[in-house]
Amino acid sequence: MAKSAVPALAIGIDIGGTGTKFGVVDRDGNVLFSGEISTKKHAEVSTFIDELYSAVSVLIEKAGGVGRMKGIGVGAPNGNYYTGTIEYAPNLPWKGVIPMSKLMESKFRLPVTLTNDANAAAIGEMMYGAAKGMKDFIMITLGTGVGSGIVANGKLIYGHDGFAGELGHTIIIPDGRMHPGTGKKGSLESYASATGVRYTALELLEGTDEKSELRTIPKDELDSKKVYEAAINGDELARHVYEYTGRILGLALANAVMFSSPEAIVLFGGLTKAGDLILKPTREHMEANLIQVFQNKVKILISHLRESDAAILGASALVWETK
Amino acid sequence: MAKSAVPALAIGIDIGGTGTKFGVVDRDGNVLFSGEISTKKHAEVSTFIDELYSAVSVLIEKAGGVGRMKGIGVGAPNGNYYTGTIEYAPNLPWKGVIPMSKLMESKFRLPVTLTNDANAAAIGEMMYGAAKGMKDFIMITLGTGVGSGIVANGKLIYGHDGFAGELGHTIIIPDGRMHPGTGKKGSLESYASATGVRYTALELLEGTDEKSELRTIPKDELDSKKVYEAAINGDELARHVYEYTGRILGLALANAVMFSSPEAIVLFGGLTKAGDLILKPTREHMEANLIQVFQNKVKILISHLRESDAAILGASALVWETK
Repeated sequence: MAKSAVPALAIGIDIGGTGTKFGVVDRDGNVLFSGEISTKKHAEVSTFIDELYSAVSVLIEKAGGVGRMKGIGVGAPNGNYYTGTIEYAPNLPWKGVIPMSKLMESKFRLPVTLTNDANAAAIGEMMYGAAKGMKDFIMITLGTGVGSGIVANGKLIYGHDGFAGELGHTIIIPDGRMHPGTGKKGSLESYASATGVRYTALELLEGTDEKSELRTIPKDELDSKKVYEAAINGDELARHVYEYTGRILGLALANAVMFSSPEAIVLFGGLTKAGDLILKPTREHMEANLIQVFQNKVKILISHLRESDAAILGASALVWETK
Repeated sequence: MAKSAVPALAIGIDIGGTGTKFGVVDRDGNVLFSGEISTKKHAEVSTFIDELYSAVSVLIEKAGGVGRMKGIGVGAPNGNYYTGTIEYAPNLPWKGVIPMSKLMESKFRLPVTLTNDANAAAIGEMMYGAAKGMKDFIMITLGTGVGSGIVANGKLIYGHDGFAGELGHTIIIPDGRMHPGTGKKGSLESYASATGVRYTALELLEGTDEKSELRTIPKDELDSKKVYEAAINGDELARHVYEYTGRILGLALANAVMFSSPEAIVLFGGLTKAGDLILKPTREHMEANLIQVFQNKVKILISHLRESDAAILGASALVWETK
């Protein structure tokens, strides 16, 4: 069966701080087999690679053997597309510069393409998701932090050093809230992330007398999920948290639009689950800050990829992109 | 002489609010012949095209005839690369949407490529100037207004609609200074332009008791040139104007760097003449707002193209770019 030898499948690997997800994906974006191992428990990158190899090999065999695999795509925090290294990732157990592509290539004996997780997500959206067929769009992941991937002229922008697309660290409120990780004040990530939502709620609880069911929750137990639940229940203060967050996110999106004029902005991640609570003020403040020529033409889309698949899909999509 | 028939020359036309400059340029960026007509005096675009055609034709003949011309490149405010139109340019005499490329093509019988003036400047810098050979850089023109052209992956970013690269209108100081042209508050252009410098000086003169030679100048005669001269003379208040301007420009540059991670930012225009008065605080505040991975690796360069040639060069360079 010569046909089964055609390398028509890709392996997608998403390295996260807690766990690493992986899967075998076909060119149409179907995740045929998938699995997960712990990242956190591996103090050494070598034992991580060993366990990853064992686990992925099982899937490769199930999918018809290594001959069917065109390559491996990897999404990782602080992943550098040009060098294949992971550099100073604060949330991974391995410090310094990790030559991840090289390590994987010698273990798997397959070509490896690596980039940061938000860039991988953007390529996934472009190939299989909400940005299918678009040549100009911006992907923004709103999770614990804020990541972004920018596509222009049909290509991901990596910048001269491979680190482009850090919208989460752009300063939206000069001298605003301090980001504990970077030491910078007023970055988008300090507001429009799960952590940011929690801080905004704490600020409103402390700075106002507004009634709120959140006042009964001990401070160290208050998180973005509890703010979300309260907002859904109609809690006014919780709703103000989302309005405030949307105001800042909307301003950041307006600035991004005036930079690269995308057809759409695709949002992904925990914060988007709040739906119109966050989207309405975001859209409103984006439009309010755009000059006329950009008004009423940029779509804000929510990723419709299944969260469990999206990271693997995005990583696997790197394999079909040519360098 | 078959060789003289090779279309080895390009015509560059820069349409400005006051005047329109044009020239015949060879592929190495030498402006062989150049001229200028008034834009302002033509209430109708048709008479403008007629005068432009007459004036340019003289240069074409001098340069060996139309057979040597590969095409015409045009830079214009609010010029759209995709449609070849000039759309709602506030500083031009013609209102609405002007099909400038089409009008020129039927008159000159040569292919016409049009884009906005800052984009044309960026292509000029990439082919002949400070960004020669760079694949990722940002061009910022600091004149009466602030324009920008962004190059990533070796290509200019036009965005899905042809209007990308409006860094001048991004909001740097939320709820900051009102821009009279757009009605938006706190945009870069409200601060880092000749107009912005004038306003900052007026604000400092009114809001502080600082001694300054600028206090002897009637308000309506105070302009960015006078602020510059005072600063050169050591006037403290005038120097504070540049520090303030550099603080805001530096923050804007940091945000742009975290977006597309350019190798360099090329600055052009009146404000750059202030040299270190503006560059020092700009560089300092850019670095201060960058997260670590971007620090100390982005060059801030001053365009070394002759101001009189740069616009024509940039426009002519469009001819050698393929769509």
